[in-house]
Amino acid sequence: MIEDKNQAKTPLTELGEFGLIDHLTKHFEIKQSSTIKGIGDDSAVLDFKDQKVVVTTDMLVEQVHFDLSYAPLKHLGYKAIMVNLSDVYAMNATATQVTVSIAVSNRFPLEALEELYAGIETAAKFYDIDIIGGDTTSSTTGLIISVTAIGVANESDLVYRSGAKPNDLLVVTGDLGAAYMGLQVLEREKEVFKVNPKNQPDLDAYTYIIERQLKPEARKDIVKLLKDLEVKPTSMIDISDGLSSEILHLCKHSKVGMELYENKLPLDPQVISTCEEFDIDSTTIALNGGEDYELLMTISQEDFPKIKGNPNLTVIGFVTEESKGKHLITRAETSIPIIAKGWNSFD
Amino acid sequence: MIEDKNQAKTPLTELGEFGLIDHLTKHFEIKQSSTIKGIGDDSAVLDFKDQKVVVTTDMLVEQVHFDLSYAPLKHLGYKAIMVNLSDVYAMNATATQVTVSIAVSNRFPLEALEELYAGIETAAKFYDIDIIGGDTTSSTTGLIISVTAIGVANESDLVYRSGAKPNDLLVVTGDLGAAYMGLQVLEREKEVFKVNPKNQPDLDAYTYIIERQLKPEARKDIVKLLKDLEVKPTSMIDISDGLSSEILHLCKHSKVGMELYENKLPLDPQVISTCEEFDIDSTTIALNGGEDYELLMTISQEDFPKIKGNPNLTVIGFVTEESKGKHLITRAETSIPIIAKGWNSFD
Repeated sequence: MIEDKNQAKTPLTELGEFGLIDHLTKHFEIKQSSTIKGIGDDSAVLDFKDQKVVVTTDMLVEQVHFDLSYAPLKHLGYKAIMVNLSDVYAMNATATQVTVSIAVSNRFPLEALEELYAGIETAAKFYDIDIIGGDTTSSTTGLIISVTAIGVANESDLVYRSGAKPNDLLVVTGDLGAAYMGLQVLEREKEVFKVNPKNQPDLDAYTYIIERQLKPEARKDIVKLLKDLEVKPTSMIDISDGLSSEILHLCKHSKVGMELYENKLPLDPQVISTCEEFDIDSTTIALNGGEDYELLMTISQEDFPKIKGNPNLTVIGFVTEESKGKHLITRAETSIPIIAKGWNSFD
Repeated sequence: MIEDKNQAKTPLTELGEFGLIDHLTKHFEIKQSSTIKGIGDDSAVLDFKDQKVVVTTDMLVEQVHFDLSYAPLKHLGYKAIMVNLSDVYAMNATATQVTVSIAVSNRFPLEALEELYAGIETAAKFYDIDIIGGDTTSSTTGLIISVTAIGVANESDLVYRSGAKPNDLLVVTGDLGAAYMGLQVLEREKEVFKVNPKNQPDLDAYTYIIERQLKPEARKDIVKLLKDLEVKPTSMIDISDGLSSEILHLCKHSKVGMELYENKLPLDPQVISTCEEFDIDSTTIALNGGEDYELLMTISQEDFPKIKGNPNLTVIGFVTEESKGKHLITRAETSIPIIAKGWNSFD
């Protein structure tokens, strides 16, 4: 929302496609021992020895997944990587490489793409992954970012969606609903800005929830924590599409039911106060907000002592027989069927 | 250009994002032994044992890489896979898996996406690869297809861009310039159609070159042929961006020069006759046309007897010391420096 009118603008046509790729990727270092050859040939070459390989891919589209009027390009590059790494960590695997393809209209100057790639590079550095390839092409309109992430795991460590068993505990990492409420604040400020462009928004009360929207972190630390605690979840999924939608996925793949407790849902105080301000029910947001790159898992009851009291892990329910269905137990102790209201780009 | 006004039209909003993915991918079979888990979890899981893994990615954007007024969606799906497999074969590797992400505007009905996926599935079947993941999202305007292809090879079989040595022979597969001339014919017919929509074009004289544009094949057979002939190229690259551009890439990576002979360039008779009709120099097209998913390689002179007379392989030049530069030797025996005029989406 704050435009710098004096920024340098180099048209993309000046470099051409190969020049652009070279320019944007020349600083990228290779750190993973499994990367034999990164960018620079027809394909990258990797060596995973006897480990299993996980692969996941996600696409972010301008005006569908992000709005450049308030998402800084550097944050966007960072987030595009996080979205994908989250799916690797949800397998209890270690992320090792990514490919990044970008379609971008000529209205973007080179400096904008440099910002985007700076965010991508920062993410790669912090999360210890190699950028091993990609494609950079023009688009007729906006910006599209397509990332494929690769990771490794020993076969015995892999966790699928399908292993939950009745009586397992349902556990979520971090807190819920912050990314969605951050988006509400940003959307509101955008409307204010349209009416009065000179208004400088005071966003101090929303720092946490805005950061959760613009610069989320994937839970690499949870994979390590689980290993340290010697806990292997029976099933795991990332909850980017909303808690209720992902609970239904776990239930479907594991052929089980679940009971979820409203009073256990972990909410940050900023989420609670912003929900009050917007007059939105915080439970609805925790269930359906989406874009919280947290992990939802089931663990065996016997592992409960190992996770008890850990600030990163909250028990929010338990697994039942499939025939019992999927229910939210409210604070008033009524039982409501869980239905998916997660984000859907075609709506 | 021939529209069926009676085709069924199911809006994408009717299925939603998850319903759409399920609907489009439910028929996909897993055939590769290296695919442990395909679509259906946070990530796919693969096991390559002691083989090396190659990874490549390419993005196709509507109005930049294809025009739906003459590219049937089924062919487009097929081509999106070919574009990527070609980069796997250029490593002398075997393609094993792909992920396919699609951003598509709501103006496409479900039936259009079914067509696209039918082409993707046909390619997967013919080329014996598994579709192991992807993302389907909406776009604000056109259609974008992002594919990542994965393959395997023994370390000793991998061929990079960097191994060409002076005195090696420069060899190309198939013939050159057909895809570009096919595009010229299609563009011309599109203009004719705009003026007179009732005109049914007679494209019999252009079947080969149009097929090369709309439904190219990646040269999986060449990887097998080289193995059968017991020839390991010293360097290899796919020539999708045009022969001259790729010659310069091989020279740069191998630190060598090259001499290319105009009278050796393999041209299909349809390319020659269509070039005459359009009054374009066929050598220029062979050098810079692009989108011929053929392989360009260098082989040691001692391997020449093994490839001599093979209809798939044409010797078009030889490798020199780097200081000699990169030259085309014309039919008139003059020497012209080779410069890249390949396709650039930002032009």
